[in-house]
Amino acid sequence: METVRVGLGERAYSIAIGAGVLDDASLVAPQVSGRRVALITNETVAPLLHARFARTLANAGGETASLILPDGEETKNWHTLQRIIDWMLGERFGRDVTVAALGGGVIGDLAGFAAAVYQRGVRYVQVPTTLLAQVDSSVGGKTGINHPLGKNLVGAFHQPGLVIADIAVLDSLPDRELRAGVAEVVKYGFALDGELVAWLESNIDRLIARDRDALIHAVRRCCELKAGVVAADERESGVRALLNFGHTFGHALEAAQGYGIWLHGEAVAAGMVMAADLSVKLGLLDRQALQRLRALLIRTGLPVSNPGIAMDRLIALMRGDKKVEGGRLRLVLLRSVGGAEVRADVSETRIAESIRSCTS
Amino acid sequence: METVRVGLGERAYSIAIGAGVLDDASLVAPQVSGRRVALITNETVAPLLHARFARTLANAGGETASLILPDGEETKNWHTLQRIIDWMLGERFGRDVTVAALGGGVIGDLAGFAAAVYQRGVRYVQVPTTLLAQVDSSVGGKTGINHPLGKNLVGAFHQPGLVIADIAVLDSLPDRELRAGVAEVVKYGFALDGELVAWLESNIDRLIARDRDALIHAVRRCCELKAGVVAADERESGVRALLNFGHTFGHALEAAQGYGIWLHGEAVAAGMVMAADLSVKLGLLDRQALQRLRALLIRTGLPVSNPGIAMDRLIALMRGDKKVEGGRLRLVLLRSVGGAEVRADVSETRIAESIRSCTS
Repeated sequence: METVRVGLGERAYSIAIGAGVLDDASLVAPQVSGRRVALITNETVAPLLHARFARTLANAGGETASLILPDGEETKNWHTLQRIIDWMLGERFGRDVTVAALGGGVIGDLAGFAAAVYQRGVRYVQVPTTLLAQVDSSVGGKTGINHPLGKNLVGAFHQPGLVIADIAVLDSLPDRELRAGVAEVVKYGFALDGELVAWLESNIDRLIARDRDALIHAVRRCCELKAGVVAADERESGVRALLNFGHTFGHALEAAQGYGIWLHGEAVAAGMVMAADLSVKLGLLDRQALQRLRALLIRTGLPVSNPGIAMDRLIALMRGDKKVEGGRLRLVLLRSVGGAEVRADVSETRIAESIRSCTS
Repeated sequence: METVRVGLGERAYSIAIGAGVLDDASLVAPQVSGRRVALITNETVAPLLHARFARTLANAGGETASLILPDGEETKNWHTLQRIIDWMLGERFGRDVTVAALGGGVIGDLAGFAAAVYQRGVRYVQVPTTLLAQVDSSVGGKTGINHPLGKNLVGAFHQPGLVIADIAVLDSLPDRELRAGVAEVVKYGFALDGELVAWLESNIDRLIARDRDALIHAVRRCCELKAGVVAADERESGVRALLNFGHTFGHALEAAQGYGIWLHGEAVAAGMVMAADLSVKLGLLDRQALQRLRALLIRTGLPVSNPGIAMDRLIALMRGDKKVEGGRLRLVLLRSVGGAEVRADVSETRIAESIRSCTS
């Protein structure tokens, strides 16, 4: 087992990474021993992992009640949040409850947000069961729900007490979801770490084949990168914004199609290409870096272009995204492979040009 | 103008107390200058104070849009929270918006909770316009909404950047609301500060007559007491719980009658008598202290008994309150005038006896 520590003072926590860590009762005991546990999962994950993790919680001394939600990004809304809160209150959980989120990013965001606001905040543990959630949405305390006007527009920063990233559970992940998770790994590389990009160029086939050592390397490296960024900037006022590389374009692509058509990672893949293309057009980045990004995403089997959404609609959605300050779009652009920066001075004309270039 | 500083490290803020501070643009400028402001108020307060405070915000360099909500505790729910969020997203406020809450505790709790979760948290300023809100709900960062199963069961800790407590606006407060606010002043005295109780016994008539010096003294002393407690215990794991003196009984009285029948302060008044009666029955407190509490509340014109709610219903509601840990009710009891303590070892039989004694 490998451990990545997220250093946030009194809110510091650990990410345990390895094959089979889901079964390790000693790991989760400090979070649940002698407490009631609100275990929240979904209909897809429950048949595979619910009984197994519930046993781990029992072995750790927790008394578990479970809520099994429908699966899907479209459930990440007010209605489901209220359903979770109603269930928790109906179960009469006190402030000493531990919320455990067993699932992908949607379950983590929903259960984490519920934990953030239930009786003004209770403890929670995240057990991410997708590659995307393991490398991204389980790290850094972002929780929230979507709104018809955009993704993650309502939420809270609420740090978990522990994250359990079991590589072995990815064996049952659909291939398409695994590839979407790799998009975020690629994002970490291009935004922050040129060495990770080089490693991916050599190891992408092993990663897609679910080689455990490759998965552990990728998850650990991404968590280390994110932990470093989050420790420096918990509330996303500065460097943390770099993790949004590809996301302003990506969120707009997701919203325009309706959530659930493209996976988040697929939208981020195409969004990264748009942001890199824009970086090239602005003279920030050399064209070869853009080609390396496209090549890596194509080898991973990910989309690299706008599937035909009208430009005006995409730009309007981008303006509705959270990354607007003082009326100007803030975009994460690339200066090099592994070197992202935030720019708020890009005209909509230039953005439109890149959307046009990247429309298939 | 007097200032009380709430020392919470990077979340520290000031409470400005005085007559006319609402008009002081220099006070609010650091919070709003060059920013958009989401001014949230209600239909009762708006005709009296909206135009005036909007002018202050404009003079301070803020660009204000306003939302005027219906008045009343029954609006403190999911529906109104969603309405605020929908309005804010519709106005396209960015993360740099400042939410300004102009109103009593309900507006403060709603607008504060919206500020806590809008795009995962934005800045906010509270302008409490009731005595209750000035001495209590505007200090300490508690925000939230009610649920059919109990009060304030969903919410967040979110500290304001500034609190403006203008004593002069209390001139237009209905008499009943003023008296309900005094209940919380009495609470601070009996829970934490025997000297404040003695001061109240000498000055209660001046306070009810809205003598400005008396109001400033009461508001400042309560804010100082609360600031001290909150600085020591932001998340209510310890000493902050003492501020709930009278509230576990009080919340149950409110919930049983339906919110809006009794004012919060009225329910807390009767709840304090029940908690003090229980303290006497348990041999913690001398009977004379209970008599002083009852006398002070009666002089203030506040209820001092259960208006006939069935005992089983009250106890069930108390168990549904947040202050349950490990299955036992946690109650704030008195050992002396100004000396409260938390007890989790009181049997429901003893609680029932006190409810019976205090039923009129």
